This record gives sequence, C-alpha cells and structure tokens, in this order.
Amino acid sequence: MATNHDKPKPGEQPARQDASASAMALDLAPGSLSAENQAYFDTCLEKLGFVPNVLVAYAHDDAKLSAFSAFYNDLMLAPSGLSKLEREMIAVAVSSVNRCYYCLTAHGAAVRRLSDDPVLGELMAMNYRAADLSPRHRAMLDFAVKLTETPHTVGEPDRAALRAAGFGERDIWDVAAVAAFFNMSNRMASAVDMRPNAVYHRQAR
Amino acid sequence: MATNHDKPKPGEQPARQDASASAMALDLAPGSLSAENQAYFDTCLEKLGFVPNVLVAYAHDDAKLSAFSAFYNDLMLAPSGLSKLEREMIAVAVSSVNRCYYCLTAHGAAVRRLSDDPVLGELMAMNYRAADLSPRHRAMLDFAVKLTETPHTVGEPDRAALRAAGFGERDIWDVAAVAAFFNMSNRMASAVDMRPNAVYHRQAR
Amino acid sequence: MATNHDKPKPGEQPARQDASASAMALDLAPGSLSAENQAYFDTCLEKLGFVPNVLVAYAHDDAKLSAFSAFYNDLMLAPSGLSKLEREMIAVAVSSVNRCYYCLTAHGAAVRRLSDDPVLGELMAMNYRAADLSPRHRAMLDFAVKLTETPHTVGEPDRAALRAAGFGERDIWDVAAVAAFFNMSNRMASAVDMRPNAVYHRQAR
Amino acid sequence: MATNHDKPKPGEQPARQDASASAMALDLAPGSLSAENQAYFDTCLEKLGFVPNVLVAYAHDDAKLSAFSAFYNDLMLAPSGLSKLEREMIAVAVSSVNRCYYCLTAHGAAVRRLSDDPVLGELMAMNYRAADLSPRHRAMLDFAVKLTETPHTVGEPDRAALRAAGFGERDIWDVAAVAAFFNMSNRMASAVDMRPNAVYHRQAR
Amino acid sequence: MATNHDKPKPGEQPARQDASASAMALDLAPGSLSAENQAYFDTCLEKLGFVPNVLVAYAHDDAKLSAFSAFYNDLMLAPSGLSKLEREMIAVAVSSVNRCYYCLTAHGAAVRRLSDDPVLGELMAMNYRAADLSPRHRAMLDFAVKLTETPHTVGEPDRAALRAAGFGERDIWDVAAVAAFFNMSNRMASAVDMRPNAVYHRQAR
Amino acid sequence: MATNHDKPKPGEQPARQDASASAMALDLAPGSLSAENQAYFDTCLEKLGFVPNVLVAYAHDDAKLSAFSAFYNDLMLAPSGLSKLEREMIAVAVSSVNRCYYCLTAHGAAVRRLSDDPVLGELMAMNYRAADLSPRHRAMLDFAVKLTETPHTVGEPDRAALRAAGFGERDIWDVAAVAAFFNMSNRMASAVDMRPNAVYHRQAR
Repeated sequence: MATNHDKPKPGEQPARQDASASAMALDLAPGSLSAENQAYFDTCLEKLGFVPNVLVAYAHDDAKLSAFSAFYNDLMLAPSGLSKLEREMIAVAVSSVNRCYYCLTAHGAAVRRLSDDPVLGELMAMNYRAADLSPRHRAMLDFAVKLTETPHTVGEPDRAALRAAGFGERDIWDVAAVAAFFNMSNRMASAVDMRPNAVYHRQAR
Repeated sequence: MATNHDKPKPGEQPARQDASASAMALDLAPGSLSAENQAYFDTCLEKLGFVPNVLVAYAHDDAKLSAFSAFYNDLMLAPSGLSKLEREMIAVAVSSVNRCYYCLTAHGAAVRRLSDDPVLGELMAMNYRAADLSPRHRAMLDFAVKLTETPHTVGEPDRAALRAAGFGERDIWDVAAVAAFFNMSNRMASAVDMRPNAVYHRQAR
Repeated sequence: MATNHDKPKPGEQPARQDASASAMALDLAPGSLSAENQAYFDTCLEKLGFVPNVLVAYAHDDAKLSAFSAFYNDLMLAPSGLSKLEREMIAVAVSSVNRCYYCLTAHGAAVRRLSDDPVLGELMAMNYRAADLSPRHRAMLDFAVKLTETPHTVGEPDRAALRAAGFGERDIWDVAAVAAFFNMSNRMASAVDMRPNAVYHRQAR
Repeated sequence: MATNHDKPKPGEQPARQDASASAMALDLAPGSLSAENQAYFDTCLEKLGFVPNVLVAYAHDDAKLSAFSAFYNDLMLAPSGLSKLEREMIAVAVSSVNRCYYCLTAHGAAVRRLSDDPVLGELMAMNYRAADLSPRHRAMLDFAVKLTETPHTVGEPDRAALRAAGFGERDIWDVAAVAAFFNMSNRMASAVDMRPNAVYHRQAR
Repeated sequence: MATNHDKPKPGEQPARQDASASAMALDLAPGSLSAENQAYFDTCLEKLGFVPNVLVAYAHDDAKLSAFSAFYNDLMLAPSGLSKLEREMIAVAVSSVNRCYYCLTAHGAAVRRLSDDPVLGELMAMNYRAADLSPRHRAMLDFAVKLTETPHTVGEPDRAALRAAGFGERDIWDVAAVAAFFNMSNRMASAVDMRPNAVYHRQAR
Repeated sequence: MATNHDKPKPGEQPARQDASASAMALDLAPGSLSAENQAYFDTCLEKLGFVPNVLVAYAHDDAKLSAFSAFYNDLMLAPSGLSKLEREMIAVAVSSVNRCYYCLTAHGAAVRRLSDDPVLGELMAMNYRAADLSPRHRAMLDFAVKLTETPHTVGEPDRAALRAAGFGERDIWDVAAVAAFFNMSNRMASAVDMRPNAVYHRQAR
C-alpha cells in the first residue's frame, strides 16, 4: 500500500540548482589575462553585469581564450546574411539535439532577448518542429539539425533546399558554420561540465 | 561577401509563438460535458485561472475526458511513496527524451512551482544528468529514462538499482507508472500537436 | 575440433518457459477489490476462463485497477471509426517496436482471433512491413510506428497522410490514442516484468 | 463523434496473409537442378513435406544453391559444442533484432520443435531478455545480439564473458558463426522479400 | 599551464600496428587441410604471395574452410551482371558501416587494385556519399547500405530504385547477396578479431 | 541467369576520384588575403608544397580564415600534455565516427607521418578499437568518441577515467578540446563538401 508522508525523506528534497560557485568541473586556476582579454572581461561586466562562464573557463589559458573569443565573435556578431537572432536560433536548436545545459541556457536567453518572444526561446530549446516558422527558418533549422545528427548524409540536395529557401552561397556557409560551431561548443561544455551563470535563467522571461 | 542589412527580409522575423487559439491541430469540436466534467473544468478555472489544453483537447469526447482525467489524477495526485515534485520531475525528464513541447511546458512549470526552484525545472527539461541530484533522484530518473529509451532492456538489475536507492516495491510501480504514462501523453500531444496554454511559460520563473 | 555430445551439459537445456506462477516481478500483494472490480474479474473468468495478468498486476491497488480498466475499455472497445481488429493491429505493431513480451503475446492472440488469420498476428508481431496490407492499414501502421519511434518528428504531413488514406479527424485521434497507449503499456509491462497468461500462446493458432 | 459501423469499409478487412504463391519478390525462374540438389529437394519433400522457400529462392542458380546449402548445413547440423537447439535460439534472437519475417517464422518453428516448448520459440522471437535462461544461454545470446547490433564494439571482454560462461574457443567460433550467418540470411530474405512456407506457422504449437 | 615535453611518457608512443603474428584472437590450432584446400592455399601463395588471414582463421576446421571458400568464390568471382569491382565496392561500403578493420583493409585494397584508383578505395571505406558516382553506383550502394543499416525497412520501393537504375532481377539478387555476405563476414571478423595481412595496406597505393 | 560481359556498361566504370578542381561545393570566390594570411599560405606552399583545401575554403573571407587558423594552430600545435601525434589520433577517431572524408584523409595522413606507422593511421580511420593501444590511448579515444556520439551522457565518471589513465586537468581540457573541434570541423567539411588535396592520399604510405 502507498505511504503518504508529511515531511520529505532523505534525498527527496532536491538541492538548489543555481548555487554552483565554479565555472566548470575541471580544477584549472585562471591564468593571467592579456590586456586585451582583461579589457574584454571589463566590457562584459559593464555591459552584461557578469562574465559568461564559458569565458571564465577558457581563461585558464590566455591564448585559448583569445582564439575562442575571436572565433566566436566573428561567427555570431560579424555582418552576415543571417540576422543575429537567426544565428542564435541555430545555436539553440543544435544545443537541443546535443542536450547541452550550458548552451541551452545562455543562448536560449539570447533568443528570448533578441526576439522579444520568450516562447520562441522555449520552442528552440524543446523542439523547433513545434514552432510556427517561416519556410526560410524551417529550412535553416532542418539543415542545422541534420548536420548535427547525421553529418555524413548531408549533400547537394540539402544545400539545394537552402538555396530554394532563399539562402545564398555565403549564407549557406554561415548556417553551416554556426551549426558546426555549437557542435563543438556543446561538447566542450559537456566535457568539462560548464555551469551557466544563474542570471541567464531569468533574462527576458 | 556578407550582406549586412537593416530591416529583416521576408521570413526572417519569426511570428509570435504564443498566439495559437486552438488547443490542437485536429478539427474536433468540443462535445457536451457531463456534470462531473463541467465541474472539473469549473474547478480548473477557479484554481488555475484556465483549463489546461490537454483537457480541452480530450473534451471532444466526454467519456475519454473522464477516463483520462481519472487515470491522470490517480497517478499524479494520489498518495504515493513519491512526492508530487518527484512525479513531476519524472514527467519532465521523460518528456525531454521525447521532446514533447506541450508536456515540457506544462510540467516544467509544475517542477518550478513545486520546488520553488526555477533552475530545477530547466534542468529536468534540458538534461537531468547536469543537475545536482541525490542518489535517490538520480536512480529514479535513470530508471525512467532507460524505460523511455530502451524499454526492452529493462530488467531485474534495474529494479535492484531502485531498491538499493531506497525505493520499495510500490514505489517502483509508481516510478514506472509515471514514466510510462508520459510516454503515452508525450505521443498523444505530438500526434495532434497540442499547444500548451501560454500562461505556463511565465509561471514560477 | 568440435565436441559432439549425447547429453546436455549444465545450462544447455532451457527451462520450461510457461511455468511462471506470478503475474509480475514486483512483490505486491493483491489488494481487496471493490464490488465493481470483483464483478469485472468474475466476468473475465466466465468469458475468457482466466483473468489477464495485467489486471492481476494492477489489482494491488483497487483505484489504479479501476482507472486502468476504464481507460483501456474505452480505448479498445468503445465505438470508433477503427474496427476492434484495427486497434489490435496497432497494439501489436507498436509492441513489436518496443519488444514487449506481455503485449505481443496477449494482443497477438487478439489479432489472430479477430482476424481469424493466425499469420496476420505473426506479421504484426514480427514486421508489419512484410504483410500484404491495404493502403489504409499501411498508412495507419506507418503513423503508429513513427509515433512510437520518433514522436518528436510527427507533424502535419503525417496527419495529412492519414487523411489521404481516408481517416477522419476523430479516426486520427483514435489511431494516435491506441499507439500512444501501448507505448505506456509496453513500458509498464517491461518495468515490472509482467508475464502473459500461458493460454494466450495457444489461442487461435 | 465516433462512427460505429456494422460492415467493414474498403481496406478495413485485411487480406489473408498465407496465400502468397511465390517464394520471393524477384522474378527469377528456377534453374535446372544438379542431381545432388534434386536429391536434396526430394529429401526435403520426403522428410518435411515441403521444400523450404529459401532453397526455392536460391534454386534460380544451381551453383548458388549448392554453396548456400553446404554452408548452412555445416553451420547448423554439423557436430558442435552447441546443441542444435542452441544454434536455433541464436538464429531467432538475431532475426528478432533484424525483424526478419522469413527467419523468425522458419527458425521460430525450429526452436519450438527442438525444445518441445512453444513458449521458448515465442520468447526468442519477441525478446530473449524476458526468458528464464541459464547463465550459459544468457551469455550466448547477449554476445550474438551485441554482434548483431554493434559489431564494431565487440572485443576481448565479450569473448571473456563467453569463456566465463563455459564456452571453449571452438564454441565461441560457433556462436559467432551462427550469429553472423543470420545477419546475412536475414538481409537476403528482406532484400528479396522471401515468404516462409505457410506450414511453419502451425508447427509445434 | 601546459606541459611541453621532449620524450614521450609511458603509453604515449603507440606500438607498431602491423606486427600481429596470429590471424585471430581465438586460440584454435590449424586443422589438417584436405588436398583441395591445400591446393587452394598453394595457389594463394603463388598468386598473391600470402594466404589471406580469413582463410587461415577458417583453417581450424577443414569443412568450414571448404564451405566458406566455395560460397565466397561463387559470390565474388562467378559471372554476374555486376563487375568484380562493383562487388568489391559494395563489400567496402558495407564494411564501412560495420567498421570492420579486416574487411576494410583487404577489400579496400581490392577496390584500389581493380579500379586502378587509390582514392576510390579510400572513398568507399570513408563515406561513399562523398564520391563522384554514376547513378548506377549510387543506387547500388544506397541499397547495400540501407540493407545493412535497417534491413527491416527494405521493400518494393528499394527494389524499384535498383530497377530504375538499370539493374535486372538477377543483378538485384547479386547486389543483395554481396551486401548480405559482408554483413556476415564483418561480424565474423569482429567476433574473433581477425587481423588483415600487413601487405594489404601497401597494395595499389 | 547471370550476364557476363567483356566491356563495362554505362555507369559501370567509376570516374577518377582525385580530379576535383575546387576546394568545396559552395560557389564562393576567394577574397583578398591580409598580409598575414598571404604569408601563411606562402609558408604552406614552401613547407607542404600546397595549401590545404580547408584553408582555401575559408579564404573566401579573410577574417574567418584568420580566426579559424589561429584557433586551429593553438589547438593542434601549441605546447600541451598531449603529443602532436595524440592530438591527430583523436582527430581521426572522431572523424571516423562522423565519416568525414576531408578530415579522415588529411589527418589520417598526419597520423601516418607523425607515427611513421601507416597502419596506425588506417586503424584510427577504420575502428580504433581494433588497434593495439596503451591504456592511456584507449582511455583518451574512448572519451573522445563518447563525447562525439553522446555528449549529453558525459559526466564525472568519464573525467575520472581519464584521470585514472594519468591525464591531468589540463590534459583533460585538451582531449576534450581536440575532440570537440573535430566535431565542428567534420560538420563544416560535410556541409560544404570540402575536397582534400589529392597529395594526402599518397603521404607516408
């Protein structure tokens, strides 16, 4: 017969989940930052109010931090035929396939912020197929997710589907580059258990 | 070279995602409700402020609505060795495997509410393995997710692992029953494209 | 060189497989039955000659038994645009994907009985794609199996394929509901190792 | 609302499934048989009452029929540390993974016949993990099924598990050889849609 | 900070990989060969300069060696609507799915030799979809790989695709037979860890 | 009956596979190179005799080429607790899971060159589990491949396995970083169909 109970048994009350103090599970002390990277961190603090933990994690090695942030900023912020929101939508849809807690949290917040539509962020994280999307966006995310799940089966018909949805050659490169990047970043985050800054959870709800 | 642009091209600005007026994609008119089911809907309106769309969807057939809600309420609300929060944690972890937009939204909100920890809800929806869980909860969710992904491989060692984590025979039934139920409910929701009530997204953030 | 041998070595002769005395692997004593459930069991004994072990398993909790049997009987026996045989065909095709010994045995027997074609029962259990099916039945089972294997990919084109095969809105609900239910029931049976009554194996051969 | 109905609509009554006149879907006329193969077919007719359709299918080319039957007969009938029943158990467990209608039917009958236990045949076809097996048989089938599902992951620990269950070097070869063979035979049957002789369904029930 | 180092630490310098002295991991002594099989080995030595290790492995049992080589030689060398190169292309594409080291090595060399194009051999082993193939060869390999990955889903549309690419009934048999055979052979090689003769690696580069 | 034939039918003779003139399938003209990138290309020509096509592909955008090569060179060439050979072994084992033709070709050549063992290169590309590896290398590649196949299941036990095999915190970062990077690079190459320079095929054979 079922036991009903008034107070939780041991292990029954979950711990608070936003209390993690360190940026990742590896025990790597922060290295000394170059002037350029220190300025970058200062800008983050000023503009965002915090330094994203992915950067804190890379900061154990100044050269790696520089290479990562240069690569990332070109990809997500440089001029492109894809809007910043579109790039973030790809980021989240890919991270959903890979079930990456860090990236779903940080980039889910970015989709909510850039679209001003909290539900769009949820849909990208949960199942983009359930969203009400333009043909352009459905084609873009179908390509990104196929590239994530079965890259060895991507071929000319997949590129043709993007062209048919209005993407140019350079745009195809950019769709692929964002999807490919988050396949790296999701794995880096999972490998070292990166913890997203708690503030992301509350942004743009 | 990349094209930068000031105003979005057609299809580039996503539609608002919380505007859906109907509870599902099937064109089935609501049937007439029995007094009991009408009272149930009235209670929902009074207590929650809305009738959950899963009930609206079942309401095309009063007998099915009765059978579903009786089954559901016994499962999730009756006395059990599992707390209500634990049952909701299983619901969300299973729905994450099946990527069910409706259930992740509605039951994700329930986890946030019952735990008073918004981040716990996110973790159940994104990847329960990234959460800081007691051995009891890790064993409970490992069982539920294995039962979801490869039910044909579940056997005595899996039940033994639950017993080792402190679950009794009846508790094992309940873990299995909740996990199994959401494997049904996730598929029902995906089959008819159930749309969660918009209010869930904002609850307990 | 190969060893030939006249008498089996230890472990070489399999045990009899129909000798299991209990309905499931959990040690849960039968609860006392309500008058209604007792009457239901009496009817089973009278009509079938036995009480199906799934009901015996649920009988550890009278309320759960009531909820389960009400839900099940509406689903499989109530009026529907799907014949009872069609609902059993879905049950077996889904149980084949999930490799559920209990449901393949009990519902395989039902397909043999209702169709008066033992081979049809085998085909549903082994691989429905090898059967000689009408377009209606192929569409129905393709939908049920896709919903079982990859529910997150089911969408409007899948519903459209059912409509093109002649199914109405309500019929689509029913196809989905039967497929979804057996995704629950298969998992419940696997989780607690339900053992089918031995008599099923010999029925309608 | 549900439509009930008294007579089946078009496509609702399944065709009889044991009526197929040809051995396979390829349109290949039987070749002329060598004296040896003619004698083999005569023996089949005399002992079994029919020629198994797999042999009828290969008979479009006398040389291929000879090579296949020599290979098969050595594998399944020659002296071995594995009993004939054990070899048939492997055959069916492998065919279950590959969902091969022909082999599940023909070799399922063989397990029923050789074990004198119809339920054992069903268990091998449905899910061998649900059977009550000796450690020897569980190890044997675990190896065969792993070799079927993920051959690239089989290594020394898997061979060690067979040795620990009492299998010698030659026995390991034979377990592997039977499992490997049915991975060929299942695919040949599926590729050309081989139809099992109807009599198998009724054997040893 | 990263440690640079001048000499490798233990385990850091890989062992030479072509030094394996035995043909497989099972400890099975070679049996005595029949005159026919001895002659076959002599021919191998004369023509190839070595006896392929797959034959050495089978030589623990003269009858099995005979059955295997008869089956193999009919399949790969007898007259067929498929050229020998085409049969080897199928062998390698299938072995790539199954990641079989022995068969990729031995039959990769055969593709290089028969095509006089080393790159074609690499492409078959790595990903045939990246090769520049005629419609005939793409259809042939798509069929072989689908039969390898999901044999239970192969049906009339797949045979129709081969016919549309110009294959006759007998050719379809042969495509299926080669693909099916390597699904056996790959698993046999993985099960007993067959080691390819080192010479294959250098052939036709 | 089989058709034998003396001359190949249309589509039966494969095209030469190393003749591709362009670096990828996207029609993107090379941009003008910065002095730094021009110097990098000149160094490639001088040292390697060619510019790797991955760099040619990125050269449509000078900023992207800079970001990519800085990131890549830090990862693969900077001081690390992993030798350059070890990093290339990870690159190839990951590319094997993703079946990336470009990376298997270019980095397979690097493993052959750095190890002076052509067979090691083949084994990394075909199935690293078949190689004779030190515990250090087996642990390293098991981690890299699990991170590739199921990143969401990587956790503390996987990091502990690397530590037990002698890897320090920084080394774990580097194993993860190389594995993660090639999950990006494989997908970029597949998305745009990058073609490896033909010379790789012949290197260090």
